[in-house]
Amino acid sequence: MSVDQKITIAVDAMGGDNAPQAVIDGISIALARHPEVRFLLFGDETRLTGLVAEKPQLAQATVIRHAPDIVSNEERASIALRSGRQSSMRFAVNAVAEGEADCIVSAGNTGALMAMARFVLKMVPGIDRPAIASFFPTMRGRSVLLDLGANTDCQPENLVQFAVMGALYAKAVLGLGEPTIGLLNVGAEALKGNDVVKEAASRLRESPLPGQFRGFVEGDDIPAGSVDVVVTDGFTGNVALKTAEGTARLYTGWLKDTFRRGPLARLGYLMARGAFRQFRKRMDPRSYNGGMFVGLRGICVKSHGGMDGLGFANAIDVSIDLVRNRFNDQLVAELQAFGDDGVEAALVDIKQGSRSAQTGAT
Amino acid sequence: MSVDQKITIAVDAMGGDNAPQAVIDGISIALARHPEVRFLLFGDETRLTGLVAEKPQLAQATVIRHAPDIVSNEERASIALRSGRQSSMRFAVNAVAEGEADCIVSAGNTGALMAMARFVLKMVPGIDRPAIASFFPTMRGRSVLLDLGANTDCQPENLVQFAVMGALYAKAVLGLGEPTIGLLNVGAEALKGNDVVKEAASRLRESPLPGQFRGFVEGDDIPAGSVDVVVTDGFTGNVALKTAEGTARLYTGWLKDTFRRGPLARLGYLMARGAFRQFRKRMDPRSYNGGMFVGLRGICVKSHGGMDGLGFANAIDVSIDLVRNRFNDQLVAELQAFGDDGVEAALVDIKQGSRSAQTGAT
Repeated sequence: MSVDQKITIAVDAMGGDNAPQAVIDGISIALARHPEVRFLLFGDETRLTGLVAEKPQLAQATVIRHAPDIVSNEERASIALRSGRQSSMRFAVNAVAEGEADCIVSAGNTGALMAMARFVLKMVPGIDRPAIASFFPTMRGRSVLLDLGANTDCQPENLVQFAVMGALYAKAVLGLGEPTIGLLNVGAEALKGNDVVKEAASRLRESPLPGQFRGFVEGDDIPAGSVDVVVTDGFTGNVALKTAEGTARLYTGWLKDTFRRGPLARLGYLMARGAFRQFRKRMDPRSYNGGMFVGLRGICVKSHGGMDGLGFANAIDVSIDLVRNRFNDQLVAELQAFGDDGVEAALVDIKQGSRSAQTGAT
Repeated sequence: MSVDQKITIAVDAMGGDNAPQAVIDGISIALARHPEVRFLLFGDETRLTGLVAEKPQLAQATVIRHAPDIVSNEERASIALRSGRQSSMRFAVNAVAEGEADCIVSAGNTGALMAMARFVLKMVPGIDRPAIASFFPTMRGRSVLLDLGANTDCQPENLVQFAVMGALYAKAVLGLGEPTIGLLNVGAEALKGNDVVKEAASRLRESPLPGQFRGFVEGDDIPAGSVDVVVTDGFTGNVALKTAEGTARLYTGWLKDTFRRGPLARLGYLMARGAFRQFRKRMDPRSYNGGMFVGLRGICVKSHGGMDGLGFANAIDVSIDLVRNRFNDQLVAELQAFGDDGVEAALVDIKQGSRSAQTGAT
């Protein structure tokens, strides 16, 4: 018997490279993990009905809603926003806006999902721009990185808001008490960063955050896990994430080459194979699947498009953590606490500062 | 008997964590590889004389010049520029400016070296800002990445110039005929990049480059080696490089853990050990040591500060490649070829464009 609250998850069943099969596999795995969860499934009713019918347990926990359209991966966000009103993605987002579901999970087009979620759900008051936050493996465990690509240009106030949201994300998804926060910058040897990170750092030092600000960190601090939350703009964050993923693939490739070098190396691999299971598990991108669009009035979780059922189920786990830990309520409370501590004034200053800076430039 | 031209290298013997021992070891290895090269060694005369005297071959190929000061790693560039006029680093830079040496190699403070080299050597006409270029391992071999941290904010014209210099670097150091060039950007899924990269891409498409422009690449294209030259600003480049280095350390750590998991795994490692030699060699940062400050009127190569003799010798190899391939003459010719093709006009346009853009903002 579960004592957990009943959670309903709106699922875009047609998003992702392996949809809808991977999605159905995913919610099936998730249901086994969380029997109390219910799914509102959007997509091609005929296909979904057939797939769900194969899994009797799932059929009982799932309601299927027909959506005639699918947003393709190639579709531009602005187009998808206009022409995708009857899509499985849009219906899933609407379900949260209308209070029918607690969160959305989709493996579809990231830009389109962001555009729809932002349009339908709106921003949390006090947050100017959403960011994409996710966690990744480090030498010390797991850390959160944001923004992973929602905003290619950021102002200091955006980075301060990302720090607040990233710390709350680390609390909800990684279960950390008081996360440490670092601001990504270039090496101590070089001219230390641009004006935006310098200004953001000075503001972060003065702000009461849901975590400890530890100052600047560098690229190698991300995999080292020097801090629990790494804050950066969406351009740098996206490049850093993809560089790390690519480097992982490079090393995996080299490792495979190594074990193919003759019979002795092959035999060596066979002997160490058991030990390699843990290595492979640590590297498995499915274990780190599930990024959230933070800053929106609603929990919207994005799965990587290429995930299988296990990966999709892990993204669902993330959404459940965020709903259970009331991520958005925490965020609103945190922003109010900013006010109670007299730091709402600081936030207002920040906004006025940015406005007057613009005025100064004209 | 070598038919190569005589090359004289100005060496900052006191720069780097393991100086001067690692520097002396390094030039000794380099001399064995290139018997025709001569070294002009700057630093503490007494110490250097003692160290060089231990290697008779080296003594014959080396001239020692006393420099009373050392630039520390902690020194700010602006301070080092003013107060380091009697330093081994500054004397080495001066030697190139005065025609006594063909290039500088230093493992010292990056910011200080950049400031001194820029102050003393000046810029190549047509290049607005220097960049740090280096090569790194990929799935397909080796590629060049720049800027690695000299410029945290870049304009489109800087990125165009980096592309020209990066391609010439790939020709000189990697021996490539017509390198492919990519501009680093965020994922196809997200809003595609900021205004700077969009504008730089459109200019690169129209410019006759010493290589083929292949458009945008993403972070994972760096380790994949999708292009030979990856162009980006110094903020993103620095973060990408360090993220890749840190990810390599993370995987190495995991791999060590794996082989420590019990006697069978240990035995497996012992059996595959021969094969791992190649793996370790591929990963060895010493193999990729030696970044150049491109855009200056003089070849200035920076070794990582923590290198041993072998690493330092590899940085010397890079400097020799750049001198032999007349990197700076090539660059000047390339910029003139831009003019012959009527693209000098384009370069002028670029500068005027940036100026009028600024004017437009006022």
